[in-house]
Amino acid sequence: MYALGTHLLVELRECSAKILSNLKEIQDVLISAAKVADATIVEVSFHEFSPFGISGMVVIAESHLSIHTWPEYKYAAVDIFTCGNVLKPEKAVAYLIEKFQSKNPSVVELKRGILSPMNKKLPHKINEKELKNESQRSAFSTNQGFY
Amino acid sequence: MYALGTHLLVELRECSAKILSNLKEIQDVLISAAKVADATIVEVSFHEFSPFGISGMVVIAESHLSIHTWPEYKYAAVDIFTCGNVLKPEKAVAYLIEKFQSKNPSVVELKRGILSPMNKKLPHKINEKELKNESQRSAFSTNQGFY
Repeated sequence: MYALGTHLLVELRECSAKILSNLKEIQDVLISAAKVADATIVEVSFHEFSPFGISGMVVIAESHLSIHTWPEYKYAAVDIFTCGNVLKPEKAVAYLIEKFQSKNPSVVELKRGILSPMNKKLPHKINEKELKNESQRSAFSTNQGFY
Repeated sequence: MYALGTHLLVELRECSAKILSNLKEIQDVLISAAKVADATIVEVSFHEFSPFGISGMVVIAESHLSIHTWPEYKYAAVDIFTCGNVLKPEKAVAYLIEKFQSKNPSVVELKRGILSPMNKKLPHKINEKELKNESQRSAFSTNQGFY
């Protein structure tokens, strides 16, 4: 099926508690994972919480990578959301499993924005002029309370 | 089942193309959605891409909210990842559907980090001293190449 985005839900169980507690190391691994997937990094944001647990986001031009770690359970939840057909998110998954030393990982691949089931190509992508007209219609409709 | 995180996959179809093209409006709506869910906002990051499409992240103390918009398809993919039992992510979903005027939304709720199936409580949460010892063991094992 044609979809706008590919979303990998990565469950990293039985990881190294030491690595999942290391803010710098987690940030380096996520940034490297984005590069391994051939993503274009736009912004990076990582935070450590008390008593332990780290959350991180890598915004990429093709969507995002996110991670939340529970070192006390040796568990990390990673999401890799990409659009287009250029990136290799599966390479990022393999890299993360290795770097976090997960002995029990699992991955679920979801298609996001399935606008054309049954292998039909996606509907015509409207251009900026059409989008502007559509926006004006929407604004008009909103003003008229039709929405 | 007991899980560490609750992840809502929100598919917002048939939205207002005008709103999905407005960086400021999308950022305001996502921030308000986080507040509606009683989340504690830690950091906000929004970017607009050419020719159109906006990506945004709201890092919260309880995990994150993310959005990617395709105004040319009137579609937005939103993720709301929360941990703990205090937040009300479903309130954020209802708020987003209303603000983006989605006429065809859908939501899937996933449990992330299911470490105790069959309604057993989660395993004992180790304390910082135990985590430190575990980390040292991990480091030792790593050095010994046992991992």
